[in-house]
Amino acid sequence: MKIAVLPGDGIGPEVTHEALRVLDALRLPGLTLFEGDVGAAGYRDHGHPLPPETLQMAREADAILFGAVGDPSCDDLERHLRPEQAVLGLRKELQLFANLRPATMFSGLEELSGLRPEIARQIDLLIVRELTGDVYFGDKGTRTTDSGEREGWDMMSYSESEVRRIAHTAFRAAQTRQNRLTSVDKANVLETSQLWRDVVIEVAVEYPDVALEHMYVDNAAMQLVKAPGAFDVVLTGNLFGDILSDLASMCVGSIGLLASASLGDRQTAHGTFGLYEPIHGSAPDIAGQGKANPMATILSAAMMLRHSFGLEDEAKRIEDAVARALKNGIRGGDLGGDMGCEAIGKAVCERL
Amino acid sequence: MKIAVLPGDGIGPEVTHEALRVLDALRLPGLTLFEGDVGAAGYRDHGHPLPPETLQMAREADAILFGAVGDPSCDDLERHLRPEQAVLGLRKELQLFANLRPATMFSGLEELSGLRPEIARQIDLLIVRELTGDVYFGDKGTRTTDSGEREGWDMMSYSESEVRRIAHTAFRAAQTRQNRLTSVDKANVLETSQLWRDVVIEVAVEYPDVALEHMYVDNAAMQLVKAPGAFDVVLTGNLFGDILSDLASMCVGSIGLLASASLGDRQTAHGTFGLYEPIHGSAPDIAGQGKANPMATILSAAMMLRHSFGLEDEAKRIEDAVARALKNGIRGGDLGGDMGCEAIGKAVCERL
Ligand SMILES: CC(C)[C@H](C(=O)O)[C@@H](O)C(=O)O
Ligand SMILES: CC(C)[C@H](C(=O)O)[C@@H](O)C(=O)O
Repeated sequence: MKIAVLPGDGIGPEVTHEALRVLDALRLPGLTLFEGDVGAAGYRDHGHPLPPETLQMAREADAILFGAVGDPSCDDLERHLRPEQAVLGLRKELQLFANLRPATMFSGLEELSGLRPEIARQIDLLIVRELTGDVYFGDKGTRTTDSGEREGWDMMSYSESEVRRIAHTAFRAAQTRQNRLTSVDKANVLETSQLWRDVVIEVAVEYPDVALEHMYVDNAAMQLVKAPGAFDVVLTGNLFGDILSDLASMCVGSIGLLASASLGDRQTAHGTFGLYEPIHGSAPDIAGQGKANPMATILSAAMMLRHSFGLEDEAKRIEDAVARALKNGIRGGDLGGDMGCEAIGKAVCERL
Repeated sequence: MKIAVLPGDGIGPEVTHEALRVLDALRLPGLTLFEGDVGAAGYRDHGHPLPPETLQMAREADAILFGAVGDPSCDDLERHLRPEQAVLGLRKELQLFANLRPATMFSGLEELSGLRPEIARQIDLLIVRELTGDVYFGDKGTRTTDSGEREGWDMMSYSESEVRRIAHTAFRAAQTRQNRLTSVDKANVLETSQLWRDVVIEVAVEYPDVALEHMYVDNAAMQLVKAPGAFDVVLTGNLFGDILSDLASMCVGSIGLLASASLGDRQTAHGTFGLYEPIHGSAPDIAGQGKANPMATILSAAMMLRHSFGLEDEAKRIEDAVARALKNGIRGGDLGGDMGCEAIGKAVCERL
């Protein structure tokens, strides 16, 4: 079981360190770790946010544990040298097309949500976001129009097979949950969305046990605030998923607790090849101070054990330990507490 | 003062009727009303959601009072015949590029928001959404790829002049408010957004009194739920504005109260040519039952008096009357009350 550990920038290294502490405490046999530079760290030492040696290491691993990238010192670099290109590059190069983002209310933490507690309490949804297509990866550029003006442009598109594979992921996920799927699009305006909707309807035939509904993205944003409890699995394209999944996490309130998995098709000896990362960013303002909450990264490591290594029991053990730590009042600054990164990591280990 | 009244579908006619009752009660001299078919009603009677005669009437007016369009009976029509094409067609044909959507908490209605009352209470923002460009109006289609697959595609783009004119609208609006402007984009991924950001920065030079910040759209969606009180004016492109403005209205909670103006460049004798509509839709489920809340349309008529006819005092009178009606417990079903459309319209008139 080879894990490529890519701590990245800001609080990335601190939180990754605690996730590794938890993995270590599980004493899993046959685990080998490799560490690589990525993001601003990659640019600083190798001249590129995703150095070729890091990409190679990621390719050869069974799973990638990713911290966070982003650093204000890189704001003025050309786009292709900026830290976020590491994330985009890994997704595309490794064809990690399925981004799974569970958003669940942690009991006792309702008061952290911006939503009313009685609404927040109902949140238990999974966003399945397509991650390697859409306007993110189409042709793009700046040109001069006939009238001599600058114009920025980006091509948005989805092909049948791109929609089909992510739709299957979402329908299968719904089958393991409450058998309800909401597919989000803007088919009243976009041809890309119309094809998306057509293909989702075709795929639905293979999942007669899953109730499918279609929702426009503007309405979906409203419903996430009004009645998030009505969602089970939410299927979206790359751009809409970027917005809605961040919105859903903020509805949960504790962005320092939310994990994510980005999966491809490739099967390893024990599961599916994937990249696992907390959904929070590199938080440069508190980096290096030991203040970050590592729980989202620890929970991402749990997702890794589940999806890439078939270790469901161990994944559950980590998740239970985090839930119990929260119940016992172990809280980082993001949750209104005062425990530091290392202390939280140790507290979770004690409860394994 | 010529007003083209386009009631449209569903509850459109009922709510428009009450807005006209309020205008009538003001006894404005020199007001002439014309009524046209639009939406499903337009398709039914003229074979097109935006019949040429309606478009012509709209062109010749000083302002358009619009109800709502949309009808389930049209779901299977080809895209260009569906009711929403009336909205898109009017925007594009009349170059109504600036969509203004104020979202303000009505005092006493905090309990209707999905947000915590102490957060909801702070909402007082204006969304300025570009309305005639972006991926909405670029080339689009479905093609077959080399490998024989269907692919849907839409071109996203903004030119310098398109960004510049909406940026001016937003900066000027900020000057009449708290002098703060948040420009929303996805410049870390999209070239369209990068140009957007570059041009907004250029325009900012002319408004040294306005504090400008840039925010990625995923973050903006989060902040609207976490700390909406931090926003003053929010400037967005067409697609992101569609999502964020609906999100903002839902944060206010009472979507039956929110008005909007869509303005162009054309000056009439008294102000700016524009289209005014409630942000809610046609609500076919309650259409024709006299249950709809006409307040959003009444408030849209107030915006019309302000922007298209320079009647600031009269606009204020309407807004005050609505606020007092709400304070006196006049509530439609959307606000948990039981008053009907006509009764609410009359209640507002009594308070003028
Ligand atoms: C950093 C950025 C390019 C990225 C995205 O837009 O996908 C991030 O917002 C995310 O959601 O993982
Ligand atoms: C009906 C639809 C085309 C429209 C849009 O997307 O602009 C609506 O959602 C709006 O916001 O006015």
